[in-house]
This record gives sequence, structure tokens and C-alpha cells, in this order.
Amino acid sequence: MLRPASAPAGVPDTRSPLLGEASAAETFRLADPALPHVSVRDLGITRGDGVFEGISAVRGRPQALDAHLRRLASSAAALDLPEPDLDAWRAAILAVCAALAAHPQIAVKAVYTRGVEGAGVPTGWVHGLPATDFRGLRISGIAVVTLDRGYRHDVAQTSPWLLQGAKTLSYAVNTAAMREAKRRGADDVVFVSSDGIVLEGPTSSVLLRRGNALLTPGTGLAILEGTTQGTVFDFARGRGLRTGFELSTVADLHSADAAWLLSSVRHAVPITAIDGIPKGVDRTLTDEINVHLAQVAE
Amino acid sequence: MLRPASAPAGVPDTRSPLLGEASAAETFRLADPALPHVSVRDLGITRGDGVFEGISAVRGRPQALDAHLRRLASSAAALDLPEPDLDAWRAAILAVCAALAAHPQIAVKAVYTRGVEGAGVPTGWVHGLPATDFRGLRISGIAVVTLDRGYRHDVAQTSPWLLQGAKTLSYAVNTAAMREAKRRGADDVVFVSSDGIVLEGPTSSVLLRRGNALLTPGTGLAILEGTTQGTVFDFARGRGLRTGFELSTVADLHSADAAWLLSSVRHAVPITAIDGIPKGVDRTLTDEINVHLAQVAE
Repeated sequence: MLRPASAPAGVPDTRSPLLGEASAAETFRLADPALPHVSVRDLGITRGDGVFEGISAVRGRPQALDAHLRRLASSAAALDLPEPDLDAWRAAILAVCAALAAHPQIAVKAVYTRGVEGAGVPTGWVHGLPATDFRGLRISGIAVVTLDRGYRHDVAQTSPWLLQGAKTLSYAVNTAAMREAKRRGADDVVFVSSDGIVLEGPTSSVLLRRGNALLTPGTGLAILEGTTQGTVFDFARGRGLRTGFELSTVADLHSADAAWLLSSVRHAVPITAIDGIPKGVDRTLTDEINVHLAQVAE
Repeated sequence: MLRPASAPAGVPDTRSPLLGEASAAETFRLADPALPHVSVRDLGITRGDGVFEGISAVRGRPQALDAHLRRLASSAAALDLPEPDLDAWRAAILAVCAALAAHPQIAVKAVYTRGVEGAGVPTGWVHGLPATDFRGLRISGIAVVTLDRGYRHDVAQTSPWLLQGAKTLSYAVNTAAMREAKRRGADDVVFVSSDGIVLEGPTSSVLLRRGNALLTPGTGLAILEGTTQGTVFDFARGRGLRTGFELSTVADLHSADAAWLLSSVRHAVPITAIDGIPKGVDRTLTDEINVHLAQVAE
């Protein structure tokens, strides 16, 4: 059983005998985030061999926590990591949120690695920080570029060892794509499969509005299940909008009535340009979604 | 300037003012590898955002050190990391090798990350361990499976943000491919591009013999420049063999007179089966290459 450690910023489980024998109430411990906690031999750092979740908490209450925990377990399964003890992770995440509850919004990261090479025991921790204030960005929006992800849209089915659809620590390509966007004068990226299908952002889901319908690239694609996208779909159905999954091309992205990138901490950010071509913003719906996301806490 | 820290196993540069002001002779410090040294906020662990080299040292002398340092710098450039101070890295690597010179062979890892998020300063360390004894494996050989890497063979040219050809810390796919090989009853993997071109192993280069020629998949493919492969080519030319680069299909792999995976610490391991089909081993050449690799130290 994993015993994640937790803190206002976190600490890995060092698997000391004390922790190994700890009672259920002692599955994690708080630690000073200013100190180093990770071994240079942890496979999380030497191989990016682990998974994570980024979770938003509003006034100390984590959002879509069940969805994040489910996805953590799903990502871990994709990497053949031992099944995470979700009760222990939940307790650690709640402890970090409680410690930072004075902040209006916090960004929590839960990291679960294969552990020190040769030890055969995973490492885990939860770390929290006051969130960047994205309220301005949710109004001003972002310019995106479309970038080839290099994989076919169906690669998760044909080649599961490529780990598409798992939220792994191996995110160097995602950060490189963001740098490429900046080089092109844009703010963010929409990845496109080698066969031309819109996938997701490096750290976000893509949402489109087409008339009365809110659409997102389908499950079964080589993409992550969006936790925020799930919350937005629940909201949209309650408001009488149709929701669904759609295989979209870049042309479909351009022709949509409005488009957003959705992510846990940044919430819904309207896309104002795609590859330099301006895109209209649905200000009313953007505001409604973000008001909803700022309130929801499970 | 990066000031890597070094140890019989290593320590990251924590960028303390002391280190920042250190003289050239103090560009690194030794540290206890049993202690944690990496921050949970280091982008090397949260994003696999960094590069590395794995270096073999025989009786304390690192092999192909210049080639490894060149590749470290090349990988860093691909990730837009600050240019590494190769003299400092060389000194740190030599210090680690010297500290472990009593061992017949050691495996040294040099890791260079983007550093703690927001700090804008990279982290680096060098870590060494006695190497696994691969002498038996160099004789018994390995069974490999071919696995789709999902990318076209020319993706390094078309989509440089995919970082193919850079040795990044984002190796979760490489370790997942190795697990897939075990599931299929094999020992290792040869990656193949989505358009059918033989690329490389997850931690190795592919070498073929065809008559009097030693061949390896060409530069310009989305693969790493092999440091051990470079040493083997030097050896082969001295022995009167032709060397060259070749775009090979899996059929070419099957029809080759012999095939190997080459890597820094494991050296030349003969391939005894490809996707379950037995492959003949060139015992004489295998032994000659491995005798050479065990002797060479730059």
C-alpha cells in the first residue's frame, strides 16, 4: 500500500520502517517543502517514470477530487504501478488543502513514482501552493498554435506502451511544445494527431461550442480524460446545452462558434486566435462556466 | 554557468550562494547519496524536464567521455536549457569515477534539469554506482521484440518539439516498452517508426553486420547519436570493416548476418531472436567488440 506523504508543500514517502508500520491514520506525514525530499535514484527523476494529478482547491476544498483520484489510479494502471491506496491519497490531499485554506485558490500536485531504482517500492507525495491568479486570463483569453503530436489519433489502442491517455511525469514534450508556442508568438498549444485530428493541449482539454452543443475530442483518442471537462459537461447539461464527443479537425476548430482550453487550476480560458487567425469569444458562456468552476468543490 | 555537484553517488546543485560564488575548483561538492537531494518542485521530477547521460567507467576511467559531453550539450540545446559548462561536468564525472575506481566497472549518470519551477536556474548532479556484471549477457545474448514508436522516421525534422534525438528525462515510454517486451517473453526492444524504419532500443543503438559492413540506422532519423556505436565504428574501421548508416526495415534486421544492441554500460549484446524468430550470433566479432569496449577509455 502506498502511504503518500503530504505537506503545505510535500514530501515523498521515504518508506522508513516507521511509515511502513504506520497505522491507517499515519499514512503520510507533513514535511518542509524547502528541504529536498527526492532521491537522485528515484525513477521519477531518472526516467520520468511515474504519474501525477494537478488539482485545484477553492478556499481549501479540492475540486473534482473523485475524478482526479480515478484518473490517478487509471494512469498508474497504464504504467503497471502498484494500485494506489486512494483513501490515503485523498487524506493527504485534504490535509494539504486544509493547511492552505487561507488562500482563495491553491494548486495541488499529487505525484506517484516507481520509487528508488531496485527498491521495488513506489514513492508518493502531495504538494500545494497558492495558485497563480488566472482571473485576467479567463477574460483576455489565449492565442494557440496547432502542433503535430506525431502520433496517429488511435495510437492508444494500437500501441499502449506509448502511454497516451496516462498522465505521466514524462512531460518534456509538453513543455517543449509550450516553448514552441511562445516562439510563434502564441500562448498555448492544441496538439493534433499525425492524421489531422484535434487532441488536447499540453496541460488542458479542448472544448468547442457549435450552436447549442458543447463538444470535446472523444474518449478513445490518445488523450487524457479531462476532469474539468467532465465538470463543465455536467454544468452544461443542467443549463440545457447538448454535450458530446466529436472527432474534430483543425478546420472544425476554426469553424466552431467558440473554443476553450479547460484545465483544473486555470479553468476555462477562451481561445482568441488559432495559428494567427482570430477567433470570436463567447463571453457570456465563458463567464458562466468560470463562475461555476469557481464554486464547485466536491 | 552550471555548477554540477558530484558524489560517489551524487547531489544536485542547490544553487546556494556559496556554490554560486564558488571558484572554478569548487563547481561541485560531494554529498551522501543516501540522503534526498532533489526538491519536489524540481521540473526534472514534476515534468521530466531535463536531460541525462549514462556513462561507463572501467577501473575509474570514463569511456567516450567527450562524446557523452557533446551529446549532453546537444540534448540541452534541444530542450533550450542553458548551455552546460562542460569543463565543470567533466570534472564532476571524473571525481565520481575516481571515488569508485576500486570497482572493475561503474555506471555513472549525469543529470541536468531545468531546476526548481520559477527559479530559472538549472539543477545538475552526477551519480555513480558499481555496474551490473553484464559479462554473461554479452555471451548469452538477448531476445528482442520490435515495437512501434508511433512517430514517422523523419519526425525530428518536421516536429522538433517532440524532442526525438535528445536524451531527456522523460523516459516513461522507454520503460513501458521494456515491460511490454517482458510480457512478450523477450528481453529488450527495437523501436520501429510508424512508417516501418528500424530506429533504436529504449536505451541502446542497433548495430547490424551485412557481409563486411557494420551498419546502424542513420543520423537524421529521430534517434540518439550512439556514443558506444561511435566507438565500435572506430574499432571496425581499424579492423578493415566497412561502416555506414542505413535505413533498415524489420525485414532488413531479420536478413542481416548478425545484430546487436549497443549501450554504454552493457556494451555489445548480440540479438538472438527478433519477434520470436531465432537469429544467428557472430560470436567472434561480438567478443572482439566487447574486448575492445572493455579496454577503451578516453
